[in-house]
Amino acid sequence: MKLVRFGEAGRERPGLVDAGGVVRDLSALLPELDGAALAPASLARLRALDPATLPAVASATRLGPPLAGVGKIVGIGLNYADHAREAGVDLPAEPTVFLKAASAITGPDDPVVLPPGSQKTDWEVELAVVIGTVARRVSEADAPGHVAGYCIGLDISERYWQLERGGQWTKGKSFDSFAPIGPWILTADELPAPRGLPMSLSVNGARMQHGDTGDMAFGVARLVSYVSGFMSLLPGDLIFTGTPAGVGLGLVPPRYLRAGDRVEASIDGLGRQRHEVVAG
Amino acid sequence: MKLVRFGEAGRERPGLVDAGGVVRDLSALLPELDGAALAPASLARLRALDPATLPAVASATRLGPPLAGVGKIVGIGLNYADHAREAGVDLPAEPTVFLKAASAITGPDDPVVLPPGSQKTDWEVELAVVIGTVARRVSEADAPGHVAGYCIGLDISERYWQLERGGQWTKGKSFDSFAPIGPWILTADELPAPRGLPMSLSVNGARMQHGDTGDMAFGVARLVSYVSGFMSLLPGDLIFTGTPAGVGLGLVPPRYLRAGDRVEASIDGLGRQRHEVVAG
Repeated sequence: MKLVRFGEAGRERPGLVDAGGVVRDLSALLPELDGAALAPASLARLRALDPATLPAVASATRLGPPLAGVGKIVGIGLNYADHAREAGVDLPAEPTVFLKAASAITGPDDPVVLPPGSQKTDWEVELAVVIGTVARRVSEADAPGHVAGYCIGLDISERYWQLERGGQWTKGKSFDSFAPIGPWILTADELPAPRGLPMSLSVNGARMQHGDTGDMAFGVARLVSYVSGFMSLLPGDLIFTGTPAGVGLGLVPPRYLRAGDRVEASIDGLGRQRHEVVAG
Repeated sequence: MKLVRFGEAGRERPGLVDAGGVVRDLSALLPELDGAALAPASLARLRALDPATLPAVASATRLGPPLAGVGKIVGIGLNYADHAREAGVDLPAEPTVFLKAASAITGPDDPVVLPPGSQKTDWEVELAVVIGTVARRVSEADAPGHVAGYCIGLDISERYWQLERGGQWTKGKSFDSFAPIGPWILTADELPAPRGLPMSLSVNGARMQHGDTGDMAFGVARLVSYVSGFMSLLPGDLIFTGTPAGVGLGLVPPRYLRAGDRVEASIDGLGRQRHEVVAG
């Protein structure tokens, strides 16, 4: 299934995308698309529905973030060898973990808002893992059973605030609009092995990043297992699994986002995001 | 008002502590003590109640964390000069900001659970600021208007995972049970200037930390204003404002928590926490 939330920002309703690409309204059957809706029994119930029986949503309707009530976004740094190289650091011996404020979440086509005065706002396209059931110190073998699905997540990062002001990455990672997710969550039953998915990101039509989810240094099962050793992963939590090469920081000279830029990002099977960059 | 949540873990109900120290049940009037309950109109409605008309709760009843649905815990590092000194670093020129997973929250008397194999789990008593209304790029002058109240927050930290494994502090800060809050939230109308409050923490009866909230390098209004420049602070978000000297890391030789230790922490007006340290 492809699960979405549609409608005005802050008032989205749950839906799914049918085989023909039409969004169908689930709001009569599901109060909200949140962590609770991702429980296996809940997903099984949705899977049993005939999408044709659900009301169709007008195609121009805005898609919002496909998940409400996200408890935390766990970010993984430097998880692709080519990105570590362009950042000028070694691939870490074990995953680098940070948190990104969930208040940064926006929809797949919402504007990316530059912080006032920002000179170094950068892009990162990532595979986001959506947790479906509580994962606490789980093994790599058991980890996939805790994953409800996947979506695109952009880990927008202000490098000046991330790297040059105060020691931790948090300041540069958590601005509002810095975590667009969606357009949909593809449930894990349709993507049992999230490897080999081409991913790309362009700025004003020029391809900046292209990679493959199979190139992660630490794969999804390892990451879920590893992170669950440090904190309970709860239904609706997200793991942003890192980005391949091609970010603005890695260019010579570096190139960062400016108001008026257009960013597009896609991962095969997970759809496409389109953002206008605007001044904050 | 002193707002609490009482009852079994995961099934707490909202309440308040009356002038005689008796917990009164608010659950017939308030569905949950969460960010929405902290809205000014909601607090005004609660303030208008006569506590004597509310059912008394048996005194042996467990107190849980006094806030549900916390969106994020923003931690401030190195905010007391004496603590920066014992950590061997300079006081930062501006606040050091990190995030701590909200899944680490527990109640004021719940066990602190050592991560398996932990050798360096440390204590930090802090003044926690509870956000009541959305704060986005607010001035220092306006910041106090966004604070609903205050409580004790312990920023339990595993130093090995915080400092020696992987670059960001996240891993050592987010274990389950590493963010006990409470016993109550004192609403800001009763604490207009959160300075000059003695704070202390003892381990097995020996006082390890004692300080005064007035010794913060960056005060509450500055912190709320500063953090709100990087991320929206939402109702129910918490800011842990940093700890004074006396943590285990700063002792010669360092001294960390072991199973069986008893930790007590208090801040004048905000009550007292009592924890048993247990093996995870």
